[in-house]
Amino acid sequence: MEITITKTTNPKKKPDKNNLVFGTVFTDHMFIMDYEEKRGWYNPRIVPYGPLQLEPACMVFHYAQETFEGLKAYKTKEGKIQLFRIQDNMKRLNQSNERLCIPKIDVDLAVEAIKTLVKVDQDWIPKMEGTSLYIRPFVIGTDNKIGVRPSSTYKFMVILSPVGSYYKEGIRPTKIYVEDKYVRAVPGGVGYAKTGGNYAASLKAQKEAKEKGYSEVLWLDGQQRKYVEEVGTSNAFFIVDGVAYTSPLQGSILAGITRNTTITLLKEMGIQVREERFTVDQLFQWHEEGKLEEAFATGTAAVISPIGQLGWKDKVAIINNFEIGKISQKIYDSITGIQNGTLEDKYHWITQLS
Amino acid sequence: MEITITKTTNPKKKPDKNNLVFGTVFTDHMFIMDYEEKRGWYNPRIVPYGPLQLEPACMVFHYAQETFEGLKAYKTKEGKIQLFRIQDNMKRLNQSNERLCIPKIDVDLAVEAIKTLVKVDQDWIPKMEGTSLYIRPFVIGTDNKIGVRPSSTYKFMVILSPVGSYYKEGIRPTKIYVEDKYVRAVPGGVGYAKTGGNYAASLKAQKEAKEKGYSEVLWLDGQQRKYVEEVGTSNAFFIVDGVAYTSPLQGSILAGITRNTTITLLKEMGIQVREERFTVDQLFQWHEEGKLEEAFATGTAAVISPIGQLGWKDKVAIINNFEIGKISQKIYDSITGIQNGTLEDKYHWITQLS
Ligand SMILES: Cc1ncc(COP(=O)(O)O)c(C=O)c1O
Ligand SMILES: Cc1ncc(COP(=O)(O)O)c(C=O)c1O
Repeated sequence: MEITITKTTNPKKKPDKNNLVFGTVFTDHMFIMDYEEKRGWYNPRIVPYGPLQLEPACMVFHYAQETFEGLKAYKTKEGKIQLFRIQDNMKRLNQSNERLCIPKIDVDLAVEAIKTLVKVDQDWIPKMEGTSLYIRPFVIGTDNKIGVRPSSTYKFMVILSPVGSYYKEGIRPTKIYVEDKYVRAVPGGVGYAKTGGNYAASLKAQKEAKEKGYSEVLWLDGQQRKYVEEVGTSNAFFIVDGVAYTSPLQGSILAGITRNTTITLLKEMGIQVREERFTVDQLFQWHEEGKLEEAFATGTAAVISPIGQLGWKDKVAIINNFEIGKISQKIYDSITGIQNGTLEDKYHWITQLS
Repeated sequence: MEITITKTTNPKKKPDKNNLVFGTVFTDHMFIMDYEEKRGWYNPRIVPYGPLQLEPACMVFHYAQETFEGLKAYKTKEGKIQLFRIQDNMKRLNQSNERLCIPKIDVDLAVEAIKTLVKVDQDWIPKMEGTSLYIRPFVIGTDNKIGVRPSSTYKFMVILSPVGSYYKEGIRPTKIYVEDKYVRAVPGGVGYAKTGGNYAASLKAQKEAKEKGYSEVLWLDGQQRKYVEEVGTSNAFFIVDGVAYTSPLQGSILAGITRNTTITLLKEMGIQVREERFTVDQLFQWHEEGKLEEAFATGTAAVISPIGQLGWKDKVAIINNFEIGKISQKIYDSITGIQNGTLEDKYHWITQLS
């Protein structure tokens, strides 16, 4: 299928590159492709960024049949444009689609669509350190029908947003609250899928944590509310006596691409990685015993967020003096170095635009 | 706040009243009201039914911050228009809103909005037995921002659809599959809220049950996958040795309005109602012992759906010879009688439009 391109005749003013707020400004173009049961996916096209016209009966407003992805494009010092692990994101989109009864999308076509779109809007990619072009592919069910069933029509879209860093704090340590009232996901559910409902379900916990002075929550497992799962929209790592612990992928957490990248880099550094379940009790015990050396969250948006403080009920654990740990910094430098082209791409994570 | 009315100049052709398919045709008008953080809810209006213009960055497409309700308007033989338990639906909408960090909506204003809209489109209410006007109020988060946080803008809308019965089978008994692979909800989650994510999460189980020849799934609890919870988009009742059992409201199932209505009517009939947890093992044991006399699902769409067969792993339980049970029929007749005005409205469930 050929991707058609219709360019805007009315380009927007670009935002102040020193003051980019995550996800608030979008570029001049977007990608759209439609799906109908009989035709499959059709009409892949790049068009000027603009509103969708959808009937109020459209399924996505009622039954949230929707999936998304998040990845970034970076500009190197030499002006080359790099995408990070794009194939993996598109494969994960299909895993989410599978769970949500959304028809799969050809990975090569999706990659081509993103490459083409980023090229069309390449002047929007900011160059300063820590900045990038955030890429948001997403799929929505678009049947104009009320009644719970998978949609028979869909739209796959990609929009782009020039971004600074996700957290206001940048790579400064964050305060994370251990959530024991609300639950995000459970095995057999949709926790491993990037689907809107998981995020809607997380808003209240996040809001209450913010009211307590924390920036995000650490989710516990939904069955027993004792095993550590993930942090907000990131995966979580804990360095205990030189060993890295992170929750295993058992269906309730997202298989983060930064998580996978981090595991590879930790191993390369000679650090043992244990993908094992452990309880929040255990975590606080490690802390009391002085064994919890570092903690950090991993995700596309912020790459690495050191966790400087954990709050749980009436307990508070300050980790590594609320300072950025050596390993956290090393992993951050390695990943961002590969992303912005200053470090070698040993693992073939980069796709360059020609 | 005054509700403004702009009538269509281009009324649609009404559908064939003998062949109404649930949720596929919408009336000439809709209700909309907007929300902004500083203004609160504003500009309540009835306008011609038509598409929404939303940016692709609109929150509802990404994080599913959305809630909805479902209720019906009925036309009596005398031509009066009746709404059933509308206040309860609007209170439940606010419970869902609370969980999803959506600002509350004044119940009286919402009721007024629905009454006014139904009146404007009253010619669309079908009159034949079993038919009604389905009312779908819903709220969506509309900030054009990527990043997980509650939206600061919303739309509350109401659309209307003339409907026949929900299941093709009408009040004929259905086959229900006991789902033990997928999970719908867990305490601490959003199972008690009418929010899109719950329905998106249910699609795959429903699809696989249909492939096995069943029309819906019976959900088990998400923690241990053994306690009986609800059926598809209905609550479930089981008559065992003359006593009615239904799952208690503990945060993972929807507090169905038909469930509550049914409990009231069962008690009026002198039937003991136990809102208690029970396992699917227990249910099949009751069946083996010949004590499971009837089973039925309750919900606005189909009112009462007798359960004629339960499938669980390799077991099959045929209930009441796959016939409509006496109690199921009685409850169905009572509820529909009150709804369509042929029975007395003892409990003040009806709101008549003047
Ligand atoms: C729930 C959740 N967990 C973890 C992550 C981290 O995944 P990744 O490293 O692929 O960005 C994300 C998002 O990006 C997420 O939404
Ligand atoms: C999950 C779920 N359970 C139960 C019900 C039944 O509730 P009500 O009787 O209020 O229609 C519904 C829907 O309407 C539902 O979506």
